Amino acid sequence: MAATYENDNIFAKILRGLIPCHKVYEDDDAIAFMDVMPQSDGHVLVLPKAASRNLLDADPAVLAKLAPLLQRMAVAAKAAFDADGISLMQFNEGAGGQTVFHLHFHIIPRYDGVPLNAHGRGMEDPEVLAANAGKLRAALAV
Amino acid sequence: MAATYENDNIFAKILRGLIPCHKVYEDDDAIAFMDVMPQSDGHVLVLPKAASRNLLDADPAVLAKLAPLLQRMAVAAKAAFDADGISLMQFNEGAGGQTVFHLHFHIIPRYDGVPLNAHGRGMEDPEVLAANAGKLRAALAV
Repeated sequence: MAATYENDNIFAKILRGLIPCHKVYEDDDAIAFMDVMPQSDGHVLVLPKAASRNLLDADPAVLAKLAPLLQRMAVAAKAAFDADGISLMQFNEGAGGQTVFHLHFHIIPRYDGVPLNAHGRGMEDPEVLAANAGKLRAALAV
Repeated sequence: MAATYENDNIFAKILRGLIPCHKVYEDDDAIAFMDVMPQSDGHVLVLPKAASRNLLDADPAVLAKLAPLLQRMAVAAKAAFDADGISLMQFNEGAGGQTVFHLHFHIIPRYDGVPLNAHGRGMEDPEVLAANAGKLRAALAV
């Protein structure tokens, strides 16, 4: 298996500004934007900017720096969407559930008794994604 | 919701040595042991020793220190079980999938075309767990 980073993956293109996203957060090291095929309302992705295919080949220092941001985003998502819980998921290789090969973490608001939507069932309305990105930005700013 | 840490959760008891586990790794800050109800052969849990209920209330410095260990364990699990991929999951509150309220990360070996077992369907044979812990320790030592 050729498990190398490919620079034309869709998240690399978002990072280069070639494809738009519903951005929630950005700093020198990381970016967060809405998943366009959300498994739950408010499903947001957090990525390091550094190129790695997934967790397996990432720079450990990049992971250490990213971890507190995952927490901040989880706390913000729970508040922004009045969720009962948060599921964090990170998939490695196709067998592991990965579909875009730039390391990313899923932060998914959850509600008591509500199962997750299947991923990839379709694109969310862009107006909904824009509104949810705004709610997350507001919650992060608190 | 009273989302506080409760010192009698089963992982706290494992950390205090009151309940045994199939230990894979331990240092001053973290421990890893086999999930007794694995969603896939080799399903391992990684925990910081510091008390927190989940990601939402953890010390960011603890998370930063733990992140590289999650990577090491994911790499080791992929090698030890000749997996095609790895799914990393971390659940917050019951709605998020959490059943034990001490922060822990699931590292789950995955195989092409093989869905995950449902969690909690039953206890794995202790001999299988012991053997898998040994495989993971060997892979970590490489």
